[in-house]
Amino acid sequence: MNARLQRLRALLQEKELDALFVSQAENRRYLSGFVGTAGFLIVSSSKAILATDFRYTEQARMQAPDFEVIQVRGEPAEWLLQTAGDLGLKRVGFESPDLTFYTYHRLTEAIGRGANWQLVPTEKLVERLRSVKDPQELAALTSAAHLADRAFEHLQKTVRPGMQEREAAWEVERFLRESGSEFIPFELIVASGPNAALPHAHPSERRIAGGEPVIMDIGARVDGYCSDLSRTFCLGKQDETFRRVYDIVLGAQLTALATLKPGMTGEEADNLARTVIVQAGYGDNFGHGLGHGVGLAVHEEPRLGMNSKDVLSDNMVFTVEPGVYLPGWGGVRIEDMAVIEQGKVRPLTGSQKIYLD
Amino acid sequence: MNARLQRLRALLQEKELDALFVSQAENRRYLSGFVGTAGFLIVSSSKAILATDFRYTEQARMQAPDFEVIQVRGEPAEWLLQTAGDLGLKRVGFESPDLTFYTYHRLTEAIGRGANWQLVPTEKLVERLRSVKDPQELAALTSAAHLADRAFEHLQKTVRPGMQEREAAWEVERFLRESGSEFIPFELIVASGPNAALPHAHPSERRIAGGEPVIMDIGARVDGYCSDLSRTFCLGKQDETFRRVYDIVLGAQLTALATLKPGMTGEEADNLARTVIVQAGYGDNFGHGLGHGVGLAVHEEPRLGMNSKDVLSDNMVFTVEPGVYLPGWGGVRIEDMAVIEQGKVRPLTGSQKIYLD
Repeated sequence: MNARLQRLRALLQEKELDALFVSQAENRRYLSGFVGTAGFLIVSSSKAILATDFRYTEQARMQAPDFEVIQVRGEPAEWLLQTAGDLGLKRVGFESPDLTFYTYHRLTEAIGRGANWQLVPTEKLVERLRSVKDPQELAALTSAAHLADRAFEHLQKTVRPGMQEREAAWEVERFLRESGSEFIPFELIVASGPNAALPHAHPSERRIAGGEPVIMDIGARVDGYCSDLSRTFCLGKQDETFRRVYDIVLGAQLTALATLKPGMTGEEADNLARTVIVQAGYGDNFGHGLGHGVGLAVHEEPRLGMNSKDVLSDNMVFTVEPGVYLPGWGGVRIEDMAVIEQGKVRPLTGSQKIYLD
Repeated sequence: MNARLQRLRALLQEKELDALFVSQAENRRYLSGFVGTAGFLIVSSSKAILATDFRYTEQARMQAPDFEVIQVRGEPAEWLLQTAGDLGLKRVGFESPDLTFYTYHRLTEAIGRGANWQLVPTEKLVERLRSVKDPQELAALTSAAHLADRAFEHLQKTVRPGMQEREAAWEVERFLRESGSEFIPFELIVASGPNAALPHAHPSERRIAGGEPVIMDIGARVDGYCSDLSRTFCLGKQDETFRRVYDIVLGAQLTALATLKPGMTGEEADNLARTVIVQAGYGDNFGHGLGHGVGLAVHEEPRLGMNSKDVLSDNMVFTVEPGVYLPGWGGVRIEDMAVIEQGKVRPLTGSQKIYLD
């Protein structure tokens, strides 16, 4: 944990901030080790404070030994002034993409009545630290990715035409949990036939039929770290559309995995796959980005997509997941999680991508 | 859905707002029926618009027939101006406890450059509508409560000394899911011995022993609606502390259930149970509030706790869950979900509360 605090402190100095007020949940866990669902951090050049309520103070003391735990009650406006005053802080950064307008407004009202300090909006300081993984994080992500692969293998053995989407999703979820996954990071997706045209469909009571596309999107969690894997398959004989669309999406995905390099922006990475799909005539049917970072959150920095200026670097972990969706027919998405290591992309998931005849 | 829109429109008129910009996830679902995880509503006196991205537009059109679905890309700052301009809106409310400072700031910057309208902070307009349930919502909540009861009964049959907390939690979760619960609303709690002193403990690998307190906190979900039930039990012979603390907490809970009335504030309701616990000498060990509303979110309005001015009324559904926590020993929490009907409190959960010898 201490190395993380040191890196944050260097960022604070660069931004001329006396401290950062951390409200974002995964940032709190990343910096402190505290896994509870309520609390705030105040990190200055010399102090690291974790403020939480009665329900969590004992747990916080056990899990966050580098932090001084203080018990607070009520909104930040009721106690942050005192804490900032005690520490002699003048410029305190806050996480503007997380803090609500309400909390910000209450805090500035309270400050207006008293203290001699100001709140300064910051964006994604800790998120940027989190986007580059350390060896311990990579080990957890690798385990989570491996679990997702095993779950997909389990599904391939058990799924049959006539099975409901939600039965298939539960079969996978039960396998994940009984194989050691923590609480899964998102509701698993099994989308069959026309439902596969909805990139984020809920598993329904629809029965999977032969010959239609089925998208399965799987996530496991190990030591708090998530995985994210999608495959598209077809029970029985694929139609021509399936073969054509599948090959385009697979071509786009393999192209991105083979040619993506550190130093590229998220937009450039996205373009590697998008060009293939656009040239094949399906540009309008690939409406989401190429991928996203994965870590303590299943969607985090970097973002690989149009307009993303995030720069890819060694030890970043992200998904590569092009998709083509055809309303009425269905869709194909192929998603792997990958890490950049010494300049090269290495997939962390390895489930089979060739559809069976 | 339409009745909900009408009630919201009456509130908008009262607040002199031309429209409400809805960003909060459960509010979006409540008003529109759309269950996707991204999107915004704009509700004016004559229009109801659902703005979402490529991934969800098809699903939104199916699930939200009362809304005009528009496909947008990027942040609200990139498209809300246009939409507000097209509708001729002047005063647009936003949900200040949900919208982030970042999004608010980007929007006001964009407005500064152009349009002739303003954003007005609002608090919990839709949340207040949601706190009073209609018959369809009560039916779903009743089913979810019943499932939680059945899951607790299942646990009583299967739990044994030597079982790990996480094994017990999984036994209950699997039962819930295989009995028809949707994705459960929170990570179930099984906290044994000293872990039971942490009100929100994660289930650990600790093995449950005889003679110690075990807190189980269970939630199911039916048609999107949550339940929340806690019981504390002891395998084998209870110690004196268990019997004393249990009886105090049960006394406090039964007192609150028997004497709570519509018209009371959340603070007055909390006091009904708190007084019992304070008088028994454990006031400092009951650090959380008495309860919270339950609906599409597992924690929602009304709040029953110190400083809560929320006024309880007919057809509100909330938990009644006093607890006493003794660091090192453990804790006792007894939680039921209840509805106020024609002036009286009726529990929706009914699991046994008398511990067995």
